[in-house]
Amino acid sequence: MKTLVLVAHPKEQDSLTQAFLKQALTFGNQDIKRRVLSDTQVDGFLAQDEMQDVLQAERIIFQFPLYWYSAPANLHQWLADSLITPYKEKMSAKELGLVVSTGRPESEFALGKKQGYSLSELLRPFAAIADNLGMRMLPYFVIPQFEYQTDKQHQQLLIDYLQYLELPRDHSFSQREEWFINRLAQLTKNKDESHYQQTLSMISQQIAERGERLTELKDEVAMIKNIEEGDL
Amino acid sequence: MKTLVLVAHPKEQDSLTQAFLKQALTFGNQDIKRRVLSDTQVDGFLAQDEMQDVLQAERIIFQFPLYWYSAPANLHQWLADSLITPYKEKMSAKELGLVVSTGRPESEFALGKKQGYSLSELLRPFAAIADNLGMRMLPYFVIPQFEYQTDKQHQQLLIDYLQYLELPRDHSFSQREEWFINRLAQLTKNKDESHYQQTLSMISQQIAERGERLTELKDEVAMIKNIEEGDL
Repeated sequence: MKTLVLVAHPKEQDSLTQAFLKQALTFGNQDIKRRVLSDTQVDGFLAQDEMQDVLQAERIIFQFPLYWYSAPANLHQWLADSLITPYKEKMSAKELGLVVSTGRPESEFALGKKQGYSLSELLRPFAAIADNLGMRMLPYFVIPQFEYQTDKQHQQLLIDYLQYLELPRDHSFSQREEWFINRLAQLTKNKDESHYQQTLSMISQQIAERGERLTELKDEVAMIKNIEEGDL
Repeated sequence: MKTLVLVAHPKEQDSLTQAFLKQALTFGNQDIKRRVLSDTQVDGFLAQDEMQDVLQAERIIFQFPLYWYSAPANLHQWLADSLITPYKEKMSAKELGLVVSTGRPESEFALGKKQGYSLSELLRPFAAIADNLGMRMLPYFVIPQFEYQTDKQHQQLLIDYLQYLELPRDHSFSQREEWFINRLAQLTKNKDESHYQQTLSMISQQIAERGERLTELKDEVAMIKNIEEGDL
């Protein structure tokens, strides 16, 4: 699947989160492209070859920090400049994902909590865009307070992020397992580098944990089937 | 009350809606200021005197066309540039209003309708901003399909718009009546111009209709009071 990540960050060069996510792509497959939206864009800033990437992608990801409960201005500018006739009608059947980094904990985004509104509520304009264009909305992917996360959380983030970009929307356990095995094979080619080694051990651990969970789930499903035959 | 209208429209000069709303302000009182956000703004574009208007205003209105279910990019840029320390903390207790023009009928903004989401849902980021800053959110003011509206609808819009800018949030009937009388007095000074005459007759009609409604309501309230004394 061809995935295009459009990064909208006014200070992309200074962002540790964006640097990490960019680095993460070196572990990803060849079908992921990443483009940073210019902050000084003008009408029609999107060059022809950039629009080709959009049109060729099966999955488009808007990746941005939450600015005043919305995307930064340059993403809004991009929407106005790019989602025009005749491009508009060519967006249908593509998937739309959101990778949103926040400076506040995710738990604050709820009724009665400090931010008052859920991310599902605040990101609703993107759902409306997806509906309007006939795109399929993916669940949003939130990265809360990246700089406060531990190394272990960062490693987990790397895996979750790549899976968000690469795996089919309603992927099965076996597709997820397969993904791990593929990445494992890729990583062992680079076994000299300690950074890769870390990730390798992380992934191995994940496989083991997920394998156990899978076995448990299979048992549960078998049990349910026995109890409620006919109902399934 | 000092009201500041911040117009965010990438093509403000070409917009019939914005031209109409600008013209409407000539009927308004002296406490309304209007500023058009620049489309080619850069970081810190807001000059010192412009920020003074923001700080002095008791009611701030964001006036914009709905672009992809949100505000145009230049309003998002303004938010990022202006709502910063130390200005942020000076926003509390101000009122925040939204004047939103749409290219689609208002009825389409609903579950299962063509746009799928209500304006209350789509404009939620602004409610979150108001909450964050301790501002008081006014109901939004929507102008659907201005160019398809009749002259009579435009006259009504003029009145409703000015009242939205000028009247206190939870105004009473008598405040509304008083507003009409004040405007009437102002307009009779310009009785030579037919445009003003039209508006004059419109306003007179409004006063008559509202007067009748007021009498009815007073009767209803008196009746309820008689029936359910103690409960009120």
